[in-house]
Amino acid sequence: MFEYTITATDPNSAARTGIFATPHGDLLTPVFAPVGTQATVKTLTPRDLAEAGATLVLANTYHLYLRPGTGLVRDFGGLHSFMGWPGPLLTDSGGFQVFSLAQMRKVDADGVTFRSHIDGGLHRFTPESAIASQEDLGADIIMCLDECPDPLDRRYNEEALARTHAWAARCQAAQRQPDQALFGIVQGGVFPDLRVESARTLRDMDFPGYAVGGLSVGETKEQMYAMLDVTVPELPAHKPRYLMGVGAPEDIVEGVARGIDIFDCVLPTRVARNGGLLTRQGRLNLRNATYTADPLPGEPGCDCYCCQHFSRAYLRHLFKAEETLALHLATTHNVRFMIRLMDEIRAHIRTGTFMAFRETFLQAYRIPNQAVRHAQRAAHKKQMGAGK
Amino acid sequence: MFEYTITATDPNSAARTGIFATPHGDLLTPVFAPVGTQATVKTLTPRDLAEAGATLVLANTYHLYLRPGTGLVRDFGGLHSFMGWPGPLLTDSGGFQVFSLAQMRKVDADGVTFRSHIDGGLHRFTPESAIASQEDLGADIIMCLDECPDPLDRRYNEEALARTHAWAARCQAAQRQPDQALFGIVQGGVFPDLRVESARTLRDMDFPGYAVGGLSVGETKEQMYAMLDVTVPELPAHKPRYLMGVGAPEDIVEGVARGIDIFDCVLPTRVARNGGLLTRQGRLNLRNATYTADPLPGEPGCDCYCCQHFSRAYLRHLFKAEETLALHLATTHNVRFMIRLMDEIRAHIRTGTFMAFRETFLQAYRIPNQAVRHAQRAAHKKQMGAGK
Repeated sequence: MFEYTITATDPNSAARTGIFATPHGDLLTPVFAPVGTQATVKTLTPRDLAEAGATLVLANTYHLYLRPGTGLVRDFGGLHSFMGWPGPLLTDSGGFQVFSLAQMRKVDADGVTFRSHIDGGLHRFTPESAIASQEDLGADIIMCLDECPDPLDRRYNEEALARTHAWAARCQAAQRQPDQALFGIVQGGVFPDLRVESARTLRDMDFPGYAVGGLSVGETKEQMYAMLDVTVPELPAHKPRYLMGVGAPEDIVEGVARGIDIFDCVLPTRVARNGGLLTRQGRLNLRNATYTADPLPGEPGCDCYCCQHFSRAYLRHLFKAEETLALHLATTHNVRFMIRLMDEIRAHIRTGTFMAFRETFLQAYRIPNQAVRHAQRAAHKKQMGAGK
Repeated sequence: MFEYTITATDPNSAARTGIFATPHGDLLTPVFAPVGTQATVKTLTPRDLAEAGATLVLANTYHLYLRPGTGLVRDFGGLHSFMGWPGPLLTDSGGFQVFSLAQMRKVDADGVTFRSHIDGGLHRFTPESAIASQEDLGADIIMCLDECPDPLDRRYNEEALARTHAWAARCQAAQRQPDQALFGIVQGGVFPDLRVESARTLRDMDFPGYAVGGLSVGETKEQMYAMLDVTVPELPAHKPRYLMGVGAPEDIVEGVARGIDIFDCVLPTRVARNGGLLTRQGRLNLRNATYTADPLPGEPGCDCYCCQHFSRAYLRHLFKAEETLALHLATTHNVRFMIRLMDEIRAHIRTGTFMAFRETFLQAYRIPNQAVRHAQRAAHKKQMGAGK
């Protein structure tokens, strides 16, 4: 189980295509996983996801542990059955949300105690409990409990890294279910030596796959790319590599170029709910008055249900009128946009044209200002506190 | 065009089945129209509606006049094209919303001046402008502008009725498009003599169909049924009869028994958004803790996508977690519930068993307390002001 077969490698970059075999189906990599935080990719049904071409869905253990409870999900036969998604699933350990969402947290060598962002109730995660929760959920790919420090704080990263490595060993020891691939998570902030140390330590523990965590959390894109440049070469070539919480289309293209196989991000679904459509030219804001009478589809040429049936004018009307359908239709497009991007990336890797595609893509795609992006992200996090 | 063919009549009641031919397809009556206030049946795509078996959709001229503007919809080829619904559409005249939602209104013989509930802007509807707006929208069935008084106020109803009749004649004179069926609207509050007078007056004007308005707006169910008992016999047998804004499943069964052919109501979609599922036993409140671990579908035996794929426990989780998908799935079920109810009603009329069905249905269906219902409705109206 969990065989990873490399099917093509790009001669001009670290990009590769592969097939990762999971109990709920084969994943063609590079793959993008839409985020189903609370056992639903917001506004989409499982059949909408399948129609969009999604193959892998991520769910958040922290949220599901708090509500409805991982035990209840287990009693329903696991997350696949509970949420009606028959394909591969990935769960995180809950660590990231404890460090970003919980009202209070106190880390010790054994685990982390925190207060729920929902009701303030006191809870505790340990490596063993994080594995137990994820075994209840039953995802195909599961994660070690890790600590996610401020990426710029050297001293904190050093301390946290020791705990993250010790917890990885305990997670590995605690795992009981052979049908779940437990990935180790490389941490180390923006510090190359820590990243290398982390990658080597985890590599020696022989996980069936490796995640790169603690990126896209406040550092610059250049810092993120630099960390991939030093980390990926330290990871075994024949294991899948997962860049957690990334990303933006441009970051995916750059991540693939650096050898990443798996991505997940709330970006396409969150941007959609804010009235933004992803296009190859960048984001299109449907709330803009420019689109009041625009008969074009969201992204001309797109084959999604939204673009095949509705005008920008209609979508804008739905957003202005605060109609729920707006969120659904924009999400339908944005998820399909990401899946088509991954399809195209894989095709270019197979034909050896990935680096030319990368250049063309980055020339056309207008990247939102980083400062604006970070401010929006921080405001959103403060407001929602719920992975929304 | 707009031929109405009676295909079966119930020997024991005024119930009948028929086929109403419209430019966008034949309607099998009795028919229930889900409400698409702002050019969308909330949370459903046109294909969701088609899958639920919906054939007729209602949209509100008042809302579309204010936003995005009926002229814009006209420029997109009309409402069918704008919202992507290929089947029959019905629009009201805007009168009801002016009298129930607008911030201010001042009626005179010529029309009504009001302030928008959205931005307080000043607007005016006349019979001629109501027809022009509905010609812009291009629905298959359109309505005369009417005045909707408090159903219990005799003096107001007398005055309003005279205006409603004068406006009906002006609407008829103003109509230019032959491919839209303009219905007259019977008013008269809870006063049998006014209802009879109104029905006779409009009958003599020879509309292609007749609506009964001003009911289900605060009077008791018994009063509503009594008004149907006196009104329907005055309407021509070979024209379709439309009971506006009704209704609840029990009211539909009672309306059909009294000879009504067309119904519309926000009830199934609004109840869904409040966490309620319609079942043959009455409403099921998904927020109730009873359903926390309930593996049953919303309504066992239902063939909708929601009931075929998800448990009450999952739906309850989505509602508790405030996930948009909850609204979509519950709406999917409730609309399908209404369509199946209409299918079954038509089948029983055809086989002459409608009155037995009526008795069985009413015995099983637990009707919410009227006082509670009216209080909820009033609170909702106050809060939303947007037909939601």
